[in-house]
Amino acid sequence: MTGFRVEASRTLTDAAFLSLEERHVVSSDGDAFYRVVVRHPGAVAVVPIDDDGFAVLIRQYRAAVDAVMLEIPAGKRDVPHESPEETAARELIEEIALAPGRITSLATFYNSPGFCDELTHLFLADELRAVDRPDGLRHEEAAMTVERVQLDEARGLIASGEIVDAKTIVGLLLAGRRLTGDD
Amino acid sequence: MTGFRVEASRTLTDAAFLSLEERHVVSSDGDAFYRVVVRHPGAVAVVPIDDDGFAVLIRQYRAAVDAVMLEIPAGKRDVPHESPEETAARELIEEIALAPGRITSLATFYNSPGFCDELTHLFLADELRAVDRPDGLRHEEAAMTVERVQLDEARGLIASGEIVDAKTIVGLLLAGRRLTGDD
Repeated sequence: MTGFRVEASRTLTDAAFLSLEERHVVSSDGDAFYRVVVRHPGAVAVVPIDDDGFAVLIRQYRAAVDAVMLEIPAGKRDVPHESPEETAARELIEEIALAPGRITSLATFYNSPGFCDELTHLFLADELRAVDRPDGLRHEEAAMTVERVQLDEARGLIASGEIVDAKTIVGLLLAGRRLTGDD
Repeated sequence: MTGFRVEASRTLTDAAFLSLEERHVVSSDGDAFYRVVVRHPGAVAVVPIDDDGFAVLIRQYRAAVDAVMLEIPAGKRDVPHESPEETAARELIEEIALAPGRITSLATFYNSPGFCDELTHLFLADELRAVDRPDGLRHEEAAMTVERVQLDEARGLIASGEIVDAKTIVGLLLAGRRLTGDD
């Protein structure tokens, strides 16, 4: 295959944690063109499994789609020097007030590599113990609610459109395979 | 749960098919805050299954991550009045030179609803027949190559990091379940 590489990049806009960038791409054939991309700091997402084998999900408002969605706990990688596992554990405490005894990797993926460099580290967490939620949570995080679902319900929730979040779909499908020993 | 809604939006930048937007969100409690979001026209993605039961994937350069990735065929919904199924069929012809005899829905999901409204319609396609690729493909599309994988290899390709694209992971996992009758 023809090789391509980014030869130069120019920031169009920085806003909140996002950056819109124009990239000049050149190929080994001498082909040259521009692409607009979104730079993102990366994310973690976690499937927390309680002692009864249920996945602990959250229902929260998402301004980007102006709707409430059912998702696994997740967050941006916006704390310097924090490993993905540390961010995952912190998000569980903040979002569902459960600290994980064990965290293992399920997958790592780009959410939408056609235009964005967001890389999500996806984990399974168990041996959960109840902790206090930290003070100071605001807006969507303060209003989110927790729901438990059985992993074998997941396909039905995806088929019915109750779960429409990519990381949650990947997480529940892979966690189901991991826990039933298909992996 | 506290209700939220977008009260006003302001475009920060339009570039290519993307729009960076600042949204003013208000809650039923009188809480008010801003969120920066990316507007995207939406996408289709298709798992094409050939007569031997293999999934037909493409290997293509992605400027957003400056790397070559193994993915299912996909494309933006950028042709007015084209249904998701029509876009899916067109992308199969353009990317792998196969026209589908049948297209059925696997799922619909937001790739990254924490900041972006991209909605992906995911399909399974089969009864494929060879056609000519259209003329005029350029850049990444002209350079892409086609690879066939067995669906039961998919988990290994995800675990090894060979497949790191969210829509491809969802597509191969759901297609595997559909074709083995687990759905």
